[in-house]
Amino acid sequence: MTVVVTGGLGFIGSHLVDAYLAAGHRVRVIDSCVGAVVDGEDYDADPRCTVIRESIEDYLDAGNGFAGTDRVVHTASHVGPASILARTGQLGNDIVGSAARVIEACLAADVPLCLFSSAEVYGRSGMLDEKDSIVVPTTYNTRIEYAIGKTLTEAMVINSRHRGLRAIVIRPFNVAGARQSRAGGFVMPTFVQQALADKPITVFATGDQVRAFVAASDLTRFVVEHMDGALGSDDVIFNVGNPDNAITVMELAERVKRLLGSASEIVRVDGRSVHGPHYAEAESFRKVPVLRAASTLGWHPEIDLDQLIMMTADYYRTRADKRGAHAPL
Amino acid sequence: MTVVVTGGLGFIGSHLVDAYLAAGHRVRVIDSCVGAVVDGEDYDADPRCTVIRESIEDYLDAGNGFAGTDRVVHTASHVGPASILARTGQLGNDIVGSAARVIEACLAADVPLCLFSSAEVYGRSGMLDEKDSIVVPTTYNTRIEYAIGKTLTEAMVINSRHRGLRAIVIRPFNVAGARQSRAGGFVMPTFVQQALADKPITVFATGDQVRAFVAASDLTRFVVEHMDGALGSDDVIFNVGNPDNAITVMELAERVKRLLGSASEIVRVDGRSVHGPHYAEAESFRKVPVLRAASTLGWHPEIDLDQLIMMTADYYRTRADKRGAHAPL
Ligand SMILES: NC(=O)c1ccc[n+]([C@@H]2O[C@H](COP(=O)([O-])OP(=O)(O)OC[C@H]3O[C@@H](n4cnc5c(N)ncnc54)[C@H](O)[C@@H]3O)[C@@H](O)[C@H]2O)c1
Ligand SMILES: NC(=O)c1ccc[n+]([C@@H]2O[C@H](COP(=O)([O-])OP(=O)(O)OC[C@H]3O[C@@H](n4cnc5c(N)ncnc54)[C@H](O)[C@@H]3O)[C@@H](O)[C@H]2O)c1
Repeated sequence: MTVVVTGGLGFIGSHLVDAYLAAGHRVRVIDSCVGAVVDGEDYDADPRCTVIRESIEDYLDAGNGFAGTDRVVHTASHVGPASILARTGQLGNDIVGSAARVIEACLAADVPLCLFSSAEVYGRSGMLDEKDSIVVPTTYNTRIEYAIGKTLTEAMVINSRHRGLRAIVIRPFNVAGARQSRAGGFVMPTFVQQALADKPITVFATGDQVRAFVAASDLTRFVVEHMDGALGSDDVIFNVGNPDNAITVMELAERVKRLLGSASEIVRVDGRSVHGPHYAEAESFRKVPVLRAASTLGWHPEIDLDQLIMMTADYYRTRADKRGAHAPL
Repeated sequence: MTVVVTGGLGFIGSHLVDAYLAAGHRVRVIDSCVGAVVDGEDYDADPRCTVIRESIEDYLDAGNGFAGTDRVVHTASHVGPASILARTGQLGNDIVGSAARVIEACLAADVPLCLFSSAEVYGRSGMLDEKDSIVVPTTYNTRIEYAIGKTLTEAMVINSRHRGLRAIVIRPFNVAGARQSRAGGFVMPTFVQQALADKPITVFATGDQVRAFVAASDLTRFVVEHMDGALGSDDVIFNVGNPDNAITVMELAERVKRLLGSASEIVRVDGRSVHGPHYAEAESFRKVPVLRAASTLGWHPEIDLDQLIMMTADYYRTRADKRGAHAPL
């Protein structure tokens, strides 16, 4: 197969590219490099891989399309609670505009689409099931604009099935692993890098908020191995996460410190003092997936939290977080 | 003042143009004519009015802007439960893409914006208050795509205030009056025209669903007289509707029949048999506004339901519903 991965130089995208190449497929990466975590030179050197360093909007607006490809996985997006702040007021249109173009190009070439949405769409706390309705809180901060944008792309994909689109939607829950940058404001690479540097581990808010981390490799396994099954199933939306890895952010700080034998102290700080006055915590105090649709297909996450912490640490022991270089540590 | 009215040849837009002209202002209409209910020749003939017959996207993409104007009222949109069906899967991007361009152009020219959202955003039933959170039902039909699109434009407007945008958002609840076409699937002009023609009055669903109709003239009075007050207030989102005109759709059919002395019989039909299999009723069984923010500014609706029925009937007694000509009566 030839698979298009938009955002293929990003954190999740690059794991997807690796997984498709490892499974023997050809890959076309389209990435604007605004948030790239790999430079893509390894992919340039692989004859089965083509890297197009351009935004998906420019690529498609120039008349290119997806003809001759077999799958499109659309991960390209502004993402990360801190990264998105610079796009406030425009972010929704960024997300929707690129998804709209991808949908039309998939329809034109009759190629199935896997759209990356987010667990943020739920807009609330708890054990979150694909069958649950979504809540939009009244406080329209940038984070909520991101969530509504993702929600609208879901609706556009699902309604486009009446126009012949074959598609699935993935709602990832707190993905972690090698290459994830602290730049976006992501907690796992921030804590791990702070612990490795023996710098204070900065816990935002009360620290009691619960997150369930899933390995990028578990997520990519779902996409690479189960997309056909997903397209043939009754479900369209798939939560992908790992409820067994649920932990409070304070406990995560302690776990990272202990596992990495770090001398860091753990401090509670206001995220706004780090990322500016518009930074907002997720609405969901407790964000844990119910894996109804994905488990019906036989997929289950495998990587536990300790492994995930060690994988992130192993990556950053020998490498700098280039994208995160300007973000506070 | 010079006021830009996007969608100014539409139902609400044309009432706004009339009200601004009557108040002594100059008006620039930008309307693609996809859903126009007036041909605009009267406006062409008025030296205080300019009509640009082009989509707002094309107008702005060509490098035009809002410099030298004092207000932008953005009403242009696909709208109507039946009209929107043809845009399923693309509608969200249509709504968001045009609002995004309008926001940028208002910022560039530093002109205050009044954005037309919809009561549909609430996604649920009841007495709906601006302070309430929004629910997105799990069934992503075209109607929900419309609602999420409108919700996202609200978030983009509100977040753009951090970029210097001065703006308010209006959530109209079931507007009615002269010129409203039955084409979009709107109930009031449909019932009135059926009653005038002594044809069966077609009640969809159970007929027990409650709607509260507000006169276009009450709505435009809010925009023309209270936008300055609204911009200076603590509120950004304004429900505009008339809770006193709340009525079930079955009772509306009876009221229209009685007031117009019609020989029509009242029949219950499935909306899908009229508008096709994808037609959906509103999620809100009972859609009634709480007028918190608008009444704080001293605005109250004045036109009662009987007047509203008579105004609609007076209009269609002497005129054909040109836009609705191809829609079933
Ligand atoms: N990381 C998570 O925990 C998480 C959780 C939920 C959802 N998601 C979703 O997963 C997807 C991937 O997230 P990620 O963590 O890998 O982010 P990332 O920032 O690491 O990767 C995104 C990539 O997309 C590229 N990109 C951005 N805009 C583009 C455009 N217009 N055209 C082409 N390329 C563009 C960036 O350069 C970057 O390489 C996103 O859609 C995100 O919303 C991620
Ligand atoms: N009618 C209601 O009860 C109601 C209720 C809630 C919200 N609204 C909102 O009020 C606004 C006006 O609704 P209406 O009932 O007058 O609809 P309408 O269809 O009568 O008017 C819309 C006008 O916009 C024009 N238009 C559409 N797309 C355009 C584009 N891209 N560029 C320029 N012009 C374009 C159409 O030609 C039409 O003249 C809409 O934003 C709608 O969502 C209406």
